[in-house]
Amino acid sequence: MPAVSDSPDEFRLIADLFAPLSRGYPGALGLTDDAALMRPPPGMDMVLTVDAMVEGIHFLPDDPADLVARKLVRVNLSDLAAKGAVPVAVMLAAAFPHNVTGAWLRRFADGLRLDLEAFSIALIGGDTVSTPGPLTLSLTAFGQVAAGTALLRSGARAGDRIWVSGSLGDGAAGLRAAQGLLGDARPEHVGYLADRYRLPRPRTGLGPELVGHAHAAMDVSDGLVQDLGHLCRASAVGAEIRADGVPLSPAVAALVAADQSWLATVLTGGDDYELLFTAPPEETEALIQIAARTGVALTPIGSVVPGSGVTVLDADAVPMRLGPAGWRHFRQSPSGDAT
Amino acid sequence: MPAVSDSPDEFRLIADLFAPLSRGYPGALGLTDDAALMRPPPGMDMVLTVDAMVEGIHFLPDDPADLVARKLVRVNLSDLAAKGAVPVAVMLAAAFPHNVTGAWLRRFADGLRLDLEAFSIALIGGDTVSTPGPLTLSLTAFGQVAAGTALLRSGARAGDRIWVSGSLGDGAAGLRAAQGLLGDARPEHVGYLADRYRLPRPRTGLGPELVGHAHAAMDVSDGLVQDLGHLCRASAVGAEIRADGVPLSPAVAALVAADQSWLATVLTGGDDYELLFTAPPEETEALIQIAARTGVALTPIGSVVPGSGVTVLDADAVPMRLGPAGWRHFRQSPSGDAT
Repeated sequence: MPAVSDSPDEFRLIADLFAPLSRGYPGALGLTDDAALMRPPPGMDMVLTVDAMVEGIHFLPDDPADLVARKLVRVNLSDLAAKGAVPVAVMLAAAFPHNVTGAWLRRFADGLRLDLEAFSIALIGGDTVSTPGPLTLSLTAFGQVAAGTALLRSGARAGDRIWVSGSLGDGAAGLRAAQGLLGDARPEHVGYLADRYRLPRPRTGLGPELVGHAHAAMDVSDGLVQDLGHLCRASAVGAEIRADGVPLSPAVAALVAADQSWLATVLTGGDDYELLFTAPPEETEALIQIAARTGVALTPIGSVVPGSGVTVLDADAVPMRLGPAGWRHFRQSPSGDAT
Repeated sequence: MPAVSDSPDEFRLIADLFAPLSRGYPGALGLTDDAALMRPPPGMDMVLTVDAMVEGIHFLPDDPADLVARKLVRVNLSDLAAKGAVPVAVMLAAAFPHNVTGAWLRRFADGLRLDLEAFSIALIGGDTVSTPGPLTLSLTAFGQVAAGTALLRSGARAGDRIWVSGSLGDGAAGLRAAQGLLGDARPEHVGYLADRYRLPRPRTGLGPELVGHAHAAMDVSDGLVQDLGHLCRASAVGAEIRADGVPLSPAVAALVAADQSWLATVLTGGDDYELLFTAPPEETEALIQIAARTGVALTPIGSVVPGSGVTVLDADAVPMRLGPAGWRHFRQSPSGDAT
């Protein structure tokens, strides 16, 4: 691609900042060639994913540059973890606004370096362009998994238990916290939630451990109910989950305790980046051991059933439905039409 | 990543339009999973590249959607060709403006399909988001090459001949043609050039043929002199080329004949997507045969020399230099400072 000619200094700076991030990966060719080389070990499948983020949509304009970079890395690694893959490398395509500053770029590269080191991966290629629009980032992530063992969305079977890692609702509540919309919440909860929104914790340690135990897996990025719906469609099954079985952080539990309508946000809010997976009941003991070994809580929230669709049950095992005003108890639905 | 919630219909349409483009590649998982799977054949290296394009910078807002898609594919395949790799698959990250229409998206998908079929590759994954800014596209392309044989920028040696494929200057002159700035040129030349700008011809057939013959290679995307400079730096060598040896299409030859200052554009203009490579003189006969076999003209334009930097010689073998007003004859330089 043609280099952008209107800000050569910044593009030189970017090259200088990014080149060290390829260290330790000879196939990156120092980020000075047209492409990168990768030689997957025999017996492994490569797992490939790409995610884009746009300023003002996927992150806030005021979010610190280092956290933007780290979030970009982490949402991609979450996809790899959901397939049971070990991350190997990433490539970055970045469209920077004309007014991006050197200080911003340095902080962005710092964040990138921090997480590449944290997850033992390298930046092996990319493209930098200029844009008159908002900062737009796209990261391609490469992982590997033993051939034929990747966890897919399509493997769920009726009778499987449905599990989630960690806690749900932190991402969606965290967005509101980061926007300053949680004025009534306790300050330590606001801080915890905003941090969870800005810096997801991809379950890279957990994902590979689930290979051989889980039938199907994905990460929760669009919201539990939507994502479980995707998994059910891919597997041609249905799902039944208990709303009160969904694991909550203390911060979100406090929000729900104060206002039950937060439960809708927990069930449908995005940005959680936890793993959602199904496994046969006989794997329960193995999963409990994996939770202990990885330090990641694993919670059964329901079952895979024949049929299609996701049914959410309340504490009395009565189906809830999502109306225009959010989730409500099915029996309280004024219109009475079934989900 | 969270789905964009403000235009669900368009995102459903995109999913419907793109899913068929993954046909024939089981690892794409029908574009319905978090990631794609790829199992490179034993003995092969994977070659990975990414390029981003922004509306108004890398293509014109009025460019037909199908041509935008095809250009995106082609600039990436050009990078793979330059490494000697055979293309296998692509992943697309797209940030669509809010006002994108269904008709535009259909035409975009049509163009994508056309070129995926033309180059026998599949769309194996991607991410679609919404943007308040200009259309921003990023494509990751995957190719393969026999292990250890990829053509790098860093392999040039003093004594190598420098070659280019096809003709140079068509991309830069084509941009002006597409912008309606070539009013004096012959209509058939304007049409030819605008087409070359909008629809590059990546040398995917030629690139793999050069493996084992070329010492170093890259594609000409930033402009011949700049790109040859990159190659020289990567190889720690210098280069000497003859301006009058650079191959021109009839359309660009006519421009240069009418106005010699077009030569600067030929030497430094971008968007050519031809291959630039070096090979020892004893490979000349083999390269002539490759040109005949692939139907792609190959022209020797100079030599790799010890030292550093790119020297451009005029018809009298006198060095030219690039001044603020473009390339000029070194001997005519008013300031007299050497390059």
